Amino acid sequence: MADKPSHITGSLITIGDEILLGDILNGNARHIAAELRARGFLLDRIITVGDIEDDIVENLGRCLSGSRFVIVTGGLGPTDDDRTCAAVSRAMERPLIRNRDYAQWLRDRLGERGLNWSSELERMAALPQGAVKLGMDSAGFSLVHEDIPCYFLPGVPEEVALLLGKEVIPDLEARFPNRCAYLKHIIRIQGLLEAQINERLRSLAPVAGVAIGYYPQGGENWVSIFVAARNERECLDLIKSAKDEVVALIGTRHVSGHNDDCLEKVVGRLLRERSWKLVLAESCTGGLLARKITGIPGASDYLDRGLVTYSNRAKSELLGVSEDLLSAHGAVSGQVARAMARGAAKNAGAEVAVAITGIAGPGGGSAEKPVGTVFIACVTPTGEKVEKYCFGTGTREQIQENSAQAALAMLWKLLAENGPLVCD
Amino acid sequence: MADKPSHITGSLITIGDEILLGDILNGNARHIAAELRARGFLLDRIITVGDIEDDIVENLGRCLSGSRFVIVTGGLGPTDDDRTCAAVSRAMERPLIRNRDYAQWLRDRLGERGLNWSSELERMAALPQGAVKLGMDSAGFSLVHEDIPCYFLPGVPEEVALLLGKEVIPDLEARFPNRCAYLKHIIRIQGLLEAQINERLRSLAPVAGVAIGYYPQGGENWVSIFVAARNERECLDLIKSAKDEVVALIGTRHVSGHNDDCLEKVVGRLLRERSWKLVLAESCTGGLLARKITGIPGASDYLDRGLVTYSNRAKSELLGVSEDLLSAHGAVSGQVARAMARGAAKNAGAEVAVAITGIAGPGGGSAEKPVGTVFIACVTPTGEKVEKYCFGTGTREQIQENSAQAALAMLWKLLAENGPLVCD
Repeated sequence: MADKPSHITGSLITIGDEILLGDILNGNARHIAAELRARGFLLDRIITVGDIEDDIVENLGRCLSGSRFVIVTGGLGPTDDDRTCAAVSRAMERPLIRNRDYAQWLRDRLGERGLNWSSELERMAALPQGAVKLGMDSAGFSLVHEDIPCYFLPGVPEEVALLLGKEVIPDLEARFPNRCAYLKHIIRIQGLLEAQINERLRSLAPVAGVAIGYYPQGGENWVSIFVAARNERECLDLIKSAKDEVVALIGTRHVSGHNDDCLEKVVGRLLRERSWKLVLAESCTGGLLARKITGIPGASDYLDRGLVTYSNRAKSELLGVSEDLLSAHGAVSGQVARAMARGAAKNAGAEVAVAITGIAGPGGGSAEKPVGTVFIACVTPTGEKVEKYCFGTGTREQIQENSAQAALAMLWKLLAENGPLVCD
Repeated sequence: MADKPSHITGSLITIGDEILLGDILNGNARHIAAELRARGFLLDRIITVGDIEDDIVENLGRCLSGSRFVIVTGGLGPTDDDRTCAAVSRAMERPLIRNRDYAQWLRDRLGERGLNWSSELERMAALPQGAVKLGMDSAGFSLVHEDIPCYFLPGVPEEVALLLGKEVIPDLEARFPNRCAYLKHIIRIQGLLEAQINERLRSLAPVAGVAIGYYPQGGENWVSIFVAARNERECLDLIKSAKDEVVALIGTRHVSGHNDDCLEKVVGRLLRERSWKLVLAESCTGGLLARKITGIPGASDYLDRGLVTYSNRAKSELLGVSEDLLSAHGAVSGQVARAMARGAAKNAGAEVAVAITGIAGPGGGSAEKPVGTVFIACVTPTGEKVEKYCFGTGTREQIQENSAQAALAMLWKLLAENGPLVCD
C-alpha cells in the first residue's frame, strides 16, 4: 500500500535590490507560489535579499535545513553584481567549474553576432560543481545538494515563468510523486456586506482539510475555499460539498460567479444568450467600463459602442440629452444619467444601455454634490434603474473603479433577475 | 563636527499565508520599502512566513542580530491563528502582560455595540512586556529590544500605511537622526531601443554615490538614477548633474518626461497650453486610451469625447466612415484608421483626434492581418500620421495596452514637434 501523501514544502529566495528599495512588487514570488501550489507544492518561506554574497550564503544555508526543495531567482547575470554562483559555491562547498557545453553555446551565440569572448562570459560559464543547466538559452541551472533539489533561475519574469513550467515543476513532480493536492475555489458575492456574509456562514461546520475565508475584493466580496487532500479527485469532492453548502447559505441570487468569472464576463454571457446589444455612456469613468467589457474576448458579439461623453456638448450630440435637462439638474444627476442611458440605447438601436455620470475628483465637488457622487442608470428591455452612489473616501482612480464596478453589478442584477443565471 | 551619516538598514517580516500560496502580491512590502527609502532607511531583507509560531520566533531571532530596526506585519488579530504576540514573547523572553488601557479601549468599543467581553479579546489585549501601543484603534505596538526598535503592525494594507506614516517612520527618524539620504529619478524615453540607449549612455563616467540603470517599462524605456548622499541637498545636486548628462546624451527629443510625468499627463499639458480639444476613436483598445487620458485630473479641460466604435455601424454613424471604405480595406486598415480620426475630429469640432483599429485577439486574426495587427492615426491642426504596428506576441490585454501606449507616443511626438516641450 502506498504511503499517505505528505505536504512538500520548500523555500524561495528572490534576489533583487529593486524589491528591497520598493521599486517593484515581487511578481516572481507570486507566480512561483501560485504555480507550485497548483501542482501540489507549498512554500513555507519567501526571502528577498540584495546582491550581497554573504546574505545569499547565509540564507541558502538556512533554507537547506528544513526545506524539501529550494528555488532561487536572480543574480545569475554576467556582471560583478551577480553573486549567486559565488554564493552557492561557498554555501555548499562546491568549486566553480567551467561548463564546457554552456561555454560553447555562449561562444556560438557571440560568433553569430560577430562579438568576441570576454572575461564576463567566462565567469558566466563557470557553475558550481554538480550543476545541470536548465536549458541552454538562459543562465538557469539546478543541482541536488544533500538530497535537496535546488533550482537557480534568472530574475527576468518571462524566463522564470518558462523555466518553472518546463524544467522545475516537472523535475519536482518526478522527485515527489507521493504528495498532497491543493485546490482553491472562489465564490463571488454581490450585494452583501462582509458582516452579512459572516452571519450567513456562521452555521458552517468545520471539515478536515477545508479552509473557508472571505474578504472584500474590488467592490465584490469573495468567499474562498481552500482544500488539501490526498489527490485532485478528493480535492474536487471537498470543493464541491463546501461550495454547495456556501452557495445555499449565501443564496444563489447573491452569487455572480465562480473563480475567474468576473462580472464583465458573466454579463457578456447573459447578453450573448439573449442576443442583446449593449451600449455604454460614460462620463466620470472615462472609458473604464468600456475597457472592462472589451477586456473579454468576443465582446464584439454584444458591445455595439461605448461613448465617453466628457463635455455637455457630447452628451447632447451623442445621447440627445437636452440642454434644459442639463441646466435644470446638472450633468451629475439621476435625471441626466437616465437620459444618457435612454438616449444611448435609442441612438444605437441597442436593447441594453448603461450610463455613468459623477464627480471623480479631486476637483469639481460642491456641498450638495461632493467628490464621489455618482449616478448610474441601466436600461434593459425588461426594466430601468437609476441609482445614486457616494464613493467619497477614495482617490480619483478608486472612485472611477468603484463606479464601473457598481455599474457592472447593477447591470448583472437586472439581467440575472430576468432569467436563470447559469452557475455551475 | 557631526559624524559621517551611515546607512540605516533593517528587516521586514511579513506574515501571511495568502502570499505563500500565491494568492496576492506583497503590496505591504513594496509600500513599506518605498516609504522607508524616501525617508532615509533601507531594508536588507524581506521575509515572508506563515502564521506558524516557530517560524516567526526563528526569523525574529535572526533579524534581531544584524538589523538596526525590525518591522513585522500580520498575525495580530484575535483568532488562534494569530501567533505574532506569542512568538515575540518567546523570541524576546518577554511575558505577555495585559495592557490595561488597550483592554479598556476594546471594552468601550464593545459596549458601544452592545457586545460582551470575550476570551479572544482578552488574548488580544495581552502584549509582550515593554510593548507600547501604536494608536489605540489598531492592534499595532512597538518595543525596543536590546536597543533595536521593533514595530509590530496589523496586516491590513490601510492600517499598515497609516501606522507606518504616523508612528513608525517618525519614531525611526527621531532615533536615527544621522543617516544617509536616498533619491531616485526616472527619465522617460520614447522612440529608442534599449540597445540604442546603452550605446548613447556608454560614455557616462561613473560618479560615487550614483547608480544609473535602464529598463523597459510599459512600452517606454526608463533610465533610472539612484543616488545616496549625506543629505537631501547633496542628493538633489547629484541627481541634477546626472540627469542633465543623461538627457544631453539621449537627446531631448526622445525625453517625454520625468518621474511620474506619464505620457497622458504630458499630452494633456500640451493640449491645454494650445487650448486644443481632443477626441478619441477606439476599436480594439475598447476605451483603454480614453481611460488613460481621463485618469488625469482635469482631463475635461481638453478631452471632448471618446468613442468606442466596436461595430462597423458605430464606425459609420459616429465617425462617418463609409461602408465602401470598410468593405474595400476592412475595418482593420490604415485607410479606416485615418477616416476614423478625420471623422472624429470633424464631428466633434475638435482640433486633435486619435483613432485605433486592430485585432486584439485571441480570435479574429488572418494570414494577412494576424492577431496584434493595429493601425493608429493621429490628426492635429499641423499634421496627420497613420502607422501600422505588429504586437503579435502578447495576450489580448498586452496588445490593447501596447496599442494605447503607442497611440499616446504618436500623439506626444506630433504635439511636441509642434513646439517646445517644457521639461524641467
